Amino acid sequence: MPTPNEVVTSMLEKDAFSQWLGIQVLSIEEGCSAIKMMVRNEMVNGFGIVHGGIAFSLADSAFAFACNNRNNLSVALETNINFLKAVNVGDELTAIATEVHNGKSTGVYSINIFNQRKELVALFKGTCFRTGKALVANENSNRSN
Amino acid sequence: MPTPNEVVTSMLEKDAFSQWLGIQVLSIEEGCSAIKMMVRNEMVNGFGIVHGGIAFSLADSAFAFACNNRNNLSVALETNINFLKAVNVGDELTAIATEVHNGKSTGVYSINIFNQRKELVALFKGTCFRTGKALVANENSNRSN
Amino acid sequence: MPTPNEVVTSMLEKDAFSQWLGIQVLSIEEGCSAIKMMVRNEMVNGFGIVHGGIAFSLADSAFAFACNNRNNLSVALETNINFLKAVNVGDELTAIATEVHNGKSTGVYSINIFNQRKELVALFKGTCFRTGKALVANENSNRSN
Amino acid sequence: MPTPNEVVTSMLEKDAFSQWLGIQVLSIEEGCSAIKMMVRNEMVNGFGIVHGGIAFSLADSAFAFACNNRNNLSVALETNINFLKAVNVGDELTAIATEVHNGKSTGVYSINIFNQRKELVALFKGTCFRTGKALVANENSNRSN
Repeated sequence: MPTPNEVVTSMLEKDAFSQWLGIQVLSIEEGCSAIKMMVRNEMVNGFGIVHGGIAFSLADSAFAFACNNRNNLSVALETNINFLKAVNVGDELTAIATEVHNGKSTGVYSINIFNQRKELVALFKGTCFRTGKALVANENSNRSN
Repeated sequence: MPTPNEVVTSMLEKDAFSQWLGIQVLSIEEGCSAIKMMVRNEMVNGFGIVHGGIAFSLADSAFAFACNNRNNLSVALETNINFLKAVNVGDELTAIATEVHNGKSTGVYSINIFNQRKELVALFKGTCFRTGKALVANENSNRSN
Repeated sequence: MPTPNEVVTSMLEKDAFSQWLGIQVLSIEEGCSAIKMMVRNEMVNGFGIVHGGIAFSLADSAFAFACNNRNNLSVALETNINFLKAVNVGDELTAIATEVHNGKSTGVYSINIFNQRKELVALFKGTCFRTGKALVANENSNRSN
Repeated sequence: MPTPNEVVTSMLEKDAFSQWLGIQVLSIEEGCSAIKMMVRNEMVNGFGIVHGGIAFSLADSAFAFACNNRNNLSVALETNINFLKAVNVGDELTAIATEVHNGKSTGVYSINIFNQRKELVALFKGTCFRTGKALVANENSNRSN
């Protein structure tokens, strides 16, 4: 059985968009994740502040790294986000994902996004469906060779 | 007074992230917008399908182009999205934003995202706050120079 | 196999709170429902307008009658609602539920609530999980007696 | 200037639906509230468990008591709720509302609903618009008579 860290390492390796965002993993525990990124020039919207899609994408990656890390492939059903404070180029954003509910078929996660001044800039909530499939092959099946 | 099209043209010129996404405007009307983009390799997540942040970002841009185009600067308060169907590299996504409610201080918008087979892949709803400020200087103020 | 109407009739018979609300069924079709109710004095909040929970509850019943009526027991995972216009005592509210997505394990429904002047007063979106269990015993099992 | 407790007392006196629900106030602080209620027979849905509208209504009252208690009349724009665990007749529900964001024109609140076994049964998030009007006449204006 792969550890939560191994599952997320495997996910992030193939996750081209999270790589484009510059996401770095801070810590992974069962059902939880903490990640960060720096905000760059190409991430602004038409008002010169950071596009809402950037904060959402960071939160969505934190959500994915939290809800999948027990190696039970889970897909997002519904997510919502409140934008609380403008984000600017040069800000460092940290997303902390915590597990609200770990059901057999579904799960609910809350993700807080903070800037480098520890101000909450966005609040995200995600609901996922668990497929029951493995993301990473289990040790047992490997050893059986 | 600038037209809805002029407001959106001005927004998109400065919107570096919408440009990175490759967003093209299909049509703009008061309180509405239709835009599209092609899904590229750098937009996938750890499962080899398109990152949820990409569909969200497209919808969020459509939302911004719809809710701001009366030249009343509006900021997103809350948005939510349901993911209905996986999106793949090479897909063409179209976002259609319609106005549900045009209040004095707030507005509500519904955005449908379709793929090239006209399948609904995501449903987004956004609530904005209207600041009352202009995005583009009005003709009157220009003429006063 | 019971019809959508039979399933909803069976649900409403046992649904004490929908009865307290005074909900009447207008029409039921596969994956859809239309219901109405009159707003009474005991439904107001501390501002003398109708409590948000009343419009929500009407929408939630419409959602339940739509998402369960194929006789596949479904439970609400996440719902959200935008309040667009104040509702007053004496208003007649109609909820129209339409199916956005009918997946094997999950479904998404949009519910519009109108007052007697056909004004949209609230917009509700619900996501459900399908358990695969029947609500009403199928003809076959009855016949087997 | 009325205290948060005075504002909520005044609200609850006129709030017929919260009275029907049997809501009791546990504690009120600036931007926060804790309330409880007992679940009765007339609150069940068609499945014999408690109607989603009941948990929502309790949370919505907690939200209203939290976001209005600085005596700045605030109206709900958008609310969403995740249903995590079935609620049964005889359960005692407690709603704890905390302030996520206290902006000048808008606010965001998170409400947790627990049953008598301290299990989280629902998670609610609400966004409000602040009108700037007083709910309860201020002492100053009274004294000016």
